[in-house]
Amino acid sequence: MKRLLLGLTAAAIAGAGAVTAQGTGPFKMEIMARQGIMAYRALQLGVLGGMAKGEIAYDAGAAQKAADNLAASAAIDESMLWPKGSDTTANPDSEALPKIWEDGSDVGERHKVLADAAAAMQAAAGKDLDSLKAAMGPVGEACGGCHKTYRKAD
Amino acid sequence: MKRLLLGLTAAAIAGAGAVTAQGTGPFKMEIMARQGIMAYRALQLGVLGGMAKGEIAYDAGAAQKAADNLAASAAIDESMLWPKGSDTTANPDSEALPKIWEDGSDVGERHKVLADAAAAMQAAAGKDLDSLKAAMGPVGEACGGCHKTYRKAD
Repeated sequence: MKRLLLGLTAAAIAGAGAVTAQGTGPFKMEIMARQGIMAYRALQLGVLGGMAKGEIAYDAGAAQKAADNLAASAAIDESMLWPKGSDTTANPDSEALPKIWEDGSDVGERHKVLADAAAAMQAAAGKDLDSLKAAMGPVGEACGGCHKTYRKAD
Repeated sequence: MKRLLLGLTAAAIAGAGAVTAQGTGPFKMEIMARQGIMAYRALQLGVLGGMAKGEIAYDAGAAQKAADNLAASAAIDESMLWPKGSDTTANPDSEALPKIWEDGSDVGERHKVLADAAAAMQAAAGKDLDSLKAAMGPVGEACGGCHKTYRKAD
């Protein structure tokens, strides 16, 4: 067992190549994990947004699945992913502004807004297209509201 | 609302900088998401493995939290993250071997082995250090067993 445990370094588990692609700073794993969770949400929103915009035919099962996944990814514990110092100033691979960690930051409340909007989407997406569309606004506002304040502008 | 929805492209949500860092292939979002989930698991295993190895003092609450997170990340729906063609041959940012998608692949069963080992860890980690240590072997075997077969060697 000792051999197994010794092999269990974080970088080895996630894949050295992936680590290289994401930089080598002290918070590379945290940044990779949070960007990966954002990408996961984006993939779910691609389905939901595509249906809302009429680019993808509405399918109750697929909509429900995407909404379930969005809610699960919003509920996952991210507390260890945002250590102080893991902002874009010190870590160019990140787009997180130092403002996140400053006094007066409401990033925790913002996350709750997302979780609530995702839960509302979960209750709506499988009903019908109009319900999905109605739930899309608050989700978009939750994403955009946080990104506008706390993410580096492109 | 239309304006909001139009802004909801996957790349915009996850952050353009992150996308650049991870390459620009057709499956960049899927690869980013799955590598991020791996990194998330690795962070939890850093806590659990550190305690098992005696590098971190055992703390029942912290161990339980890491085990809960590991189990949650193993339970998340990854079905959309592994489209055929998203292997390392076509996407150098990925370390996933084409073998994953070939006939006879047991990658689904392997994932179940991980989910089961994570559930066992969840039941053990908060009890005491010996229980955590005993649950660590199967978790390490689940990670290593899948990586050995389906991940590009460094």
